[in-house]
Amino acid sequence: MSRTRAVVSLGHDALGYTTLEQWDAVKITAKALADLAEDEYELAITHSNGPQVSMIHKAMTELRRIYPDYTPAAMCVCSAMSQGYVGYDIQNSLKSELLKRGIHKPVATVLTQVTVDPYDDAFYHPTKKIGRHMTAEEAAMEERKGNFTVEDPGKGYLRVVAAPKPMDIVEIDTIRTLFEAGHIVIAAGGGGIPVIEQNGTLKGASAVIEKDSIAAKLAADLEADVLIILTGIEKVMLNFGREDEKPLDTMTVSEAERFIGDGEFGEGTMKPKIEAAVEFLRKRPEARVLITSLSCAQDAIAGRTGTVITAG
Amino acid sequence: MSRTRAVVSLGHDALGYTTLEQWDAVKITAKALADLAEDEYELAITHSNGPQVSMIHKAMTELRRIYPDYTPAAMCVCSAMSQGYVGYDIQNSLKSELLKRGIHKPVATVLTQVTVDPYDDAFYHPTKKIGRHMTAEEAAMEERKGNFTVEDPGKGYLRVVAAPKPMDIVEIDTIRTLFEAGHIVIAAGGGGIPVIEQNGTLKGASAVIEKDSIAAKLAADLEADVLIILTGIEKVMLNFGREDEKPLDTMTVSEAERFIGDGEFGEGTMKPKIEAAVEFLRKRPEARVLITSLSCAQDAIAGRTGTVITAG
Repeated sequence: MSRTRAVVSLGHDALGYTTLEQWDAVKITAKALADLAEDEYELAITHSNGPQVSMIHKAMTELRRIYPDYTPAAMCVCSAMSQGYVGYDIQNSLKSELLKRGIHKPVATVLTQVTVDPYDDAFYHPTKKIGRHMTAEEAAMEERKGNFTVEDPGKGYLRVVAAPKPMDIVEIDTIRTLFEAGHIVIAAGGGGIPVIEQNGTLKGASAVIEKDSIAAKLAADLEADVLIILTGIEKVMLNFGREDEKPLDTMTVSEAERFIGDGEFGEGTMKPKIEAAVEFLRKRPEARVLITSLSCAQDAIAGRTGTVITAG
Repeated sequence: MSRTRAVVSLGHDALGYTTLEQWDAVKITAKALADLAEDEYELAITHSNGPQVSMIHKAMTELRRIYPDYTPAAMCVCSAMSQGYVGYDIQNSLKSELLKRGIHKPVATVLTQVTVDPYDDAFYHPTKKIGRHMTAEEAAMEERKGNFTVEDPGKGYLRVVAAPKPMDIVEIDTIRTLFEAGHIVIAAGGGGIPVIEQNGTLKGASAVIEKDSIAAKLAADLEADVLIILTGIEKVMLNFGREDEKPLDTMTVSEAERFIGDGEFGEGTMKPKIEAAVEFLRKRPEARVLITSLSCAQDAIAGRTGTVITAG
């Protein structure tokens, strides 16, 4: 029997916001993933890292204030640490869940770098807020160092970094080799560690790649049959949050594009997911995208809920 | 032509002690590793993480003092973060170095857990010092939490954790699949993340696995032809640091055991390396172990320096 090739993208809800929350959340996530593995799914998993990379960035910055002999940790280093942290928790919980069920399937995290274009518009208009709130003086100091900051009214200032589009997944051969061999691969966590290729050198970039965008790229590269985006809601909604909000069971690419044009989906929340779905289905029109919540994952996979997007 | 299967173990000197030191050090390390890859070597790489995991542990502890809403990061979590951090730096620099030489060989880090025995004697006699210096009051608080501390005379108190022996590398199938496929694999960094298997669950342990010990285990599991231990000195010495110190070109397992019995090698420095060599050669008597410094690596591999240990 031919197995279904799935890429699963885990949002914040699947991971929690602190080390203890994550500890509990990944156990529930692991059950949902193990259900998929027990069915006929080959799995590659990618995940968000917003709260985690923020925590690490904050910790490394504070450390340096207390012990000035510590040199700063660049964003790419914090991102690598967060891949280690989140990847370990997922791989540990999922392996444990599989062992309990008597399934001896390898699970492993591959640290992943993703190339971005140094001329990507995003570098001229950084928008992704990171780290802790700063005073006006601290923000001015950051600006002098060449970093960008924005005011968060009433709360202080935040550093902002660029969110460029992903070009290539540097470790794709490794991820593909494992996926083809039937291993469950956790990869490109937090969108991947962004790097710029300059004279044959991969240089870490002060940027964050959109998680949904890399999920679409990974799913296309692995020739997935389905991209499963697990987020906070059961179904994609039109008129979200209004009295006449309407859940969608299915959507075609052309409908999705019309809804995006109509401003139906929230910036930074649902819109990037729908854009990622469209991007993936343009490359693989025979595939499908499923958007639902973690708790509805099993029902959605059985076709009982969630929103399914197809090429049309 | 059959290629030589090598496991390389990188010590502190190959990585430096701070983020900037590491940034520079890994570039030199990458050249030595690329030389090996360019020769007829298949490579798996493991590395120490002492200074890195200490830095992260310190940062996460300080963060919590400033922002009490952050929950603590357990040692296993800090260890996972350090694998992400060091793994990224090695994989990035090595991939860059290979790209510059026109070699398109995949390089990737696999996050690695290693099982340890909960009844290992080491848990009753924790000896591995970690973290920052504490006051007597803070140390008493740690002891009340069930942790162990020791006094570092004149400097305060340090937390100590167990250094149990490695049992199994949880992700060995993944590491082997990649190694056999000709990928350069970075694995089991810092000795691996120690976990205890309890009722089919892998539970992170407050422990640190000796890097040299896991290098021997990894080399045996991958059926390596050679285990290359890169450390701070060109050759293993008898009477080290004394006027009559004597460098060794070769050593057999039985000589090594006699020298260990005679107390020739420093605890926590050269002794664990020689013990690891003996352990590996007992399992693979047809193989050899090479101990040298990073800067002498190329000469040593060409047979011009370093200490070669064989079964005899």
